[in-house]
Amino acid sequence: MSNNLLKGKKGIIFGALDDKSIAWKTALKCHEQGAQIVLSNAPVAIRMGEISKLADAVEAPVIGADVTNMDDLKTLFEESQKHFNGGIDFILHSIGMGMNVRKGKHYTEINYEWNQKTLDISAMSLHRVLHTAWELDALNEWGSVVGLSYIAAQRVFPDYNEMADAKALLESVARSFGYHYGVRKKVRVNTISQSPTRTTAGSGVKGFDAFIDYAEKMSPLGNASSDDCANYCVTLFSDLTRFVTMQNLFHDGGFSFTGVSEALVYQMQAAHPQE
Amino acid sequence: MSNNLLKGKKGIIFGALDDKSIAWKTALKCHEQGAQIVLSNAPVAIRMGEISKLADAVEAPVIGADVTNMDDLKTLFEESQKHFNGGIDFILHSIGMGMNVRKGKHYTEINYEWNQKTLDISAMSLHRVLHTAWELDALNEWGSVVGLSYIAAQRVFPDYNEMADAKALLESVARSFGYHYGVRKKVRVNTISQSPTRTTAGSGVKGFDAFIDYAEKMSPLGNASSDDCANYCVTLFSDLTRFVTMQNLFHDGGFSFTGVSEALVYQMQAAHPQE
Amino acid sequence: MSNNLLKGKKGIIFGALDDKSIAWKTALKCHEQGAQIVLSNAPVAIRMGEISKLADAVEAPVIGADVTNMDDLKTLFEESQKHFNGGIDFILHSIGMGMNVRKGKHYTEINYEWNQKTLDISAMSLHRVLHTAWELDALNEWGSVVGLSYIAAQRVFPDYNEMADAKALLESVARSFGYHYGVRKKVRVNTISQSPTRTTAGSGVKGFDAFIDYAEKMSPLGNASSDDCANYCVTLFSDLTRFVTMQNLFHDGGFSFTGVSEALVYQMQAAHPQE
Amino acid sequence: MSNNLLKGKKGIIFGALDDKSIAWKTALKCHEQGAQIVLSNAPVAIRMGEISKLADAVEAPVIGADVTNMDDLKTLFEESQKHFNGGIDFILHSIGMGMNVRKGKHYTEINYEWNQKTLDISAMSLHRVLHTAWELDALNEWGSVVGLSYIAAQRVFPDYNEMADAKALLESVARSFGYHYGVRKKVRVNTISQSPTRTTAGSGVKGFDAFIDYAEKMSPLGNASSDDCANYCVTLFSDLTRFVTMQNLFHDGGFSFTGVSEALVYQMQAAHPQE
Repeated sequence: MSNNLLKGKKGIIFGALDDKSIAWKTALKCHEQGAQIVLSNAPVAIRMGEISKLADAVEAPVIGADVTNMDDLKTLFEESQKHFNGGIDFILHSIGMGMNVRKGKHYTEINYEWNQKTLDISAMSLHRVLHTAWELDALNEWGSVVGLSYIAAQRVFPDYNEMADAKALLESVARSFGYHYGVRKKVRVNTISQSPTRTTAGSGVKGFDAFIDYAEKMSPLGNASSDDCANYCVTLFSDLTRFVTMQNLFHDGGFSFTGVSEALVYQMQAAHPQE
Repeated sequence: MSNNLLKGKKGIIFGALDDKSIAWKTALKCHEQGAQIVLSNAPVAIRMGEISKLADAVEAPVIGADVTNMDDLKTLFEESQKHFNGGIDFILHSIGMGMNVRKGKHYTEINYEWNQKTLDISAMSLHRVLHTAWELDALNEWGSVVGLSYIAAQRVFPDYNEMADAKALLESVARSFGYHYGVRKKVRVNTISQSPTRTTAGSGVKGFDAFIDYAEKMSPLGNASSDDCANYCVTLFSDLTRFVTMQNLFHDGGFSFTGVSEALVYQMQAAHPQE
Repeated sequence: MSNNLLKGKKGIIFGALDDKSIAWKTALKCHEQGAQIVLSNAPVAIRMGEISKLADAVEAPVIGADVTNMDDLKTLFEESQKHFNGGIDFILHSIGMGMNVRKGKHYTEINYEWNQKTLDISAMSLHRVLHTAWELDALNEWGSVVGLSYIAAQRVFPDYNEMADAKALLESVARSFGYHYGVRKKVRVNTISQSPTRTTAGSGVKGFDAFIDYAEKMSPLGNASSDDCANYCVTLFSDLTRFVTMQNLFHDGGFSFTGVSEALVYQMQAAHPQE
Repeated sequence: MSNNLLKGKKGIIFGALDDKSIAWKTALKCHEQGAQIVLSNAPVAIRMGEISKLADAVEAPVIGADVTNMDDLKTLFEESQKHFNGGIDFILHSIGMGMNVRKGKHYTEINYEWNQKTLDISAMSLHRVLHTAWELDALNEWGSVVGLSYIAAQRVFPDYNEMADAKALLESVARSFGYHYGVRKKVRVNTISQSPTRTTAGSGVKGFDAFIDYAEKMSPLGNASSDDCANYCVTLFSDLTRFVTMQNLFHDGGFSFTGVSEALVYQMQAAHPQE
C-alpha cells in the first residue's frame, strides 16, 4: 500500500543483488511510495545477480559502478542527474564485503592487503559516494543518505571478523560527513544497524545461522526482516524525519538493549537440565 | 498533507497544554494522518491550557487524569477503549515537571520530597501508564508508545537540574517495560530525545534561551522544531517502524553527535578577538 | 601486598554487610593500601551482619546511618571529620535494595510506594550523601566518590526488575553531581558497573545463578570477583586517576562489549544437538 | 613517588617522540613504578626526536619499527623478549598520523591513498602489533595493552578530520582483538580517550588551541595533562585493573559527559553582551 511518502523524490540505491537483498526490497518500497530510482551495483554483481528484473519492476536504469573508483562514481552521479533531470534526494548504501572472511582467515591472522580492500569497499565507499555528490553538488536540500550497519560495530561477535571494524569505520564516516553535509545543505546521513538478515551476501559469514537464531531469541520482537528494514528506510528518506542525522539507528526488534532474554535463559537451562 | 500513515489507528496523547506543546502538534499530525485520538492531561493543566480548541480540531474527547493516580489511569484507559470501541495502537507520553526547578532549588540542594514527585510525574508515570494498559490488555499488537526525553539524560546541562535524572529514569523505564511488552504483545516502547523546544513548560528552565541558542549553533541542521518532532512521532506510530523498540532516539539536528561546531568556535573566538 | 596507594587518605565506606560484600573487600584493600576508614551501614544491616569483625580488621569506627535520613548523614559526616581530624578523600557507596524484588512483584506490576523506597535507598541516597558532604564542605580537593552499578542500567535483564531503573538513576546522579562537585572542588564521582557478584544482597535476585553463569560465559576474562572490584576501587580512590569523572566504568571481564561469545554459542548448540 | 605498582613487569612503549609525548611521560612513570621497558618508534621519528635521552633515563633499549611492516614488528617483539628474557606484560600504543590532515585536505575532499595510510598507521597498526604478539605468543597472562584515542571517535570535531575515523577504527580493533586475546590468555586491551593534549604531534591539527581551550572550559576538572594520562596508564598496566577490557576509557576531566558548562555559557554570553 502506498502512502506517497516519497512522491517526487529521486534516489540512488546501491547493492541490490537478488530478491533477498535489503536494497532490492528498499527499491520496491521506494518505488511503491512514489520515488524514482537509479539502481547501481558493482559490474560483477550485476552480472551474477538478477538486477534487471528489479529494474523492470521499479522502472529504473541500472548503472554499474565500482564504488572504490572515483571516475565510476562521477559517471554514475552525472548520469543519474541526467536521468532525473535534477538533483538527488536519497541514497541507500548497502555495500560490504569481507575479503578475509571470504578467504577464511581468522580475525587474529588477517591479511592486511585484503583488509584494506574490505575497509575501502565496505566503509570508505560511503565517503567516496558522499565526496562525489559533494563535488557535483548533486544532493538536494534535506537529502537523506542511509548506510547499512551491524551491531558488531559496538560489540564483538567473533565470527563477524574484520567486518566489525569496517562497520565501525562506516558509522564514523556517516557521522563525520553528516556533520559537513548538514551544515552545507541540510543533508542528513545515518546508518541503520539491522538485525542479522538472511541475504545472499550475509550467508558468507561463518556460523551465520547460529547468529540469526541467537538474535531472534534475544530480541523481544524477534529479528527485523529485510521488508521491515525497507520500510524503515522509507521513513528515513521521507520528510517526516528531517532532523535525524549522524545517528546509528538500531532496527533490531530490541536486541541491542536486551542484556539477556527469558527465551535465551530457557534454552541455556535446557542445555544443562540438571542445573 | 496526509499520507494516511495512521489510518484506522487509535491513540492516547498526554500533555497537550497549548499550541506550543509537542503533544499538541503531534495530535494535529496524527489526526491529519488518519488516526482517532483521545486527549489527556492533568486536571489543572486542562483548566489552565486551551485543550478544548485542540479537541475540536482533532475531534477528540478530553479525559483528565493525574498520571500518578492509578485509578485515574484505569478510568482513562477504560473510557478510551469504550470511545474507540476497541484497543489502543499508540500513546504519546509528553509529561514532565521539575518541582525543585520550579522552586528555584539548585541541584546540589534539592528537596527530596519534591524530587520524589518530580520522578513520579516525569518518569514513573510512564510505568504507570504502561502498567495500566498491561493490566487491561488495552494495547493492540504492534502498538507503539513514545515518551519525550532530553539529552541531559546522557550529559550534564547544569540548569536542567533534577530533570536530567528524571529523564534517565524515564529512558530506563521505556527500555525495561519495552522488553516485557515486546515479548508479550509486540508492543514497542521508545523515547525521543528532542532538541530543546520553546514550549510553555520548557520556559520554566533557567537559562533556557541560552540552551536553545547553544544547541542551535551545535546542531548541523539546527534545532528540531515541535512540528518536526510531531512528524517523527507519526513515523514511530506507523507500521513502517515496527522493529524499533527500547531505544532512545535522538531527534536533534545532529546535536548529540557533534563535539564542537565551527559555528560555536566562531562565536567563542568572537568573545576573545585578541586570540 | 601494599603499594601505599592510599597513604594518608581518609574514606567512608558504606555497605559492608559480611565478608562477601564488595564494600567489605574494599575496606580491607583500602586499609592495606594505607587509608584510614569509617564504616557505615543501615542500623538493621549492622545488627544482622558482621561488621564489627571488619571494624577490628581495618581499625575503623562503625557509624550507623539510614541513607534516606539527612540528619543521620549529617551526623555521620560530622563524626567522620572529627575522627579523621580533617576532610574526607573518598567514599564508596555500595547501597541498594529492591523492595518489589524482595516482595516478588514482577516488573510490570510493581507497587509504587515500594518503588519510591527502592529509588530513594538505591539511587537518591548517593545524592543525599553528596549533598551532605557539599553542605559541610567535607570532601577534600581531588576527592573521589564511587557508586556501584550494574549493566542493567543500559540493557534489560528481566529478573533485575526495578533495580535496573534504580541503577540508571544512580548513574545519572553520579554524572550530575559529579559536574557540580568537579567545578567546585575537583571532586570526581564515578560508578563502577560490576560483573554480577555473589553477595548476600545479590542472592535475593531471582535467577541469579543463571545470571552469573551466563555472564561468566559471555565475558572473555570471566566475571570479575569482589576482590578484583575492590582493587579497582583502590585505583579510583588513588591520585593516579584524578581526571576520571562522571563515568560509568565497566568492570566485567569484557561482558559489556561482547555481543556473543563462542562459549555461549557452544552451549546453545549443545541444547539443540540436532542443529 | 613509587608505589612499585609495576614491579617485575615488562613493557613495550610505542611513540615517545619528545618530552611532550604521552608515551614519554608514560615510560618515565612505568620505570618509576618498577617496570622494565623497551622503547620503539618509527625510524624517522627516532631520528627527529630525542628518544635517546628517554632511553637513558629509563634504562631502556630503543628498537626502531615501522608499525605497518610485519617484519619490523616481528623483530621488535623477538628482540624485546630476548632483552626481557621472557614475555611481555604491557604495551602502550601511542601512534597516529593523519596524512590528509598534514597535507591540508579538508575532510570532504580527502585523498584515499593517503587515507589508507592514515588508517594503517593510526589504527590497523594496533592489530598488527597484537597479531605479531599473538603469533609469537609474546604476551604473558593478564597482560595489558592500551591504545590512545580521542572523543572524535564518538562525536564530530570538524578539524580532527579523518583522524576521527581512524580512532573509531582503532577502538573497534581494541574491542575485537581484546575479545580473542582475553579468551586465549586473559590479556586485556583498552583505549584511553584522552583530553586534547599539547604534544608535538597534536599541534599539527588545525585550530588545535581552540580545541584545547574549549575542552578546558567544558571539563569540570579541566583538561587532563599528559602526566595524568601516564598515571592512568600505570593503573591499567597494573594488576589492580585486571577485569577492565575491551573498553574505551574517557580520561578527560569530565568532558565527555558534560553537555554544556557554565564556563562556556558565560563565554558565549560575553560574545553577545546585549543578549
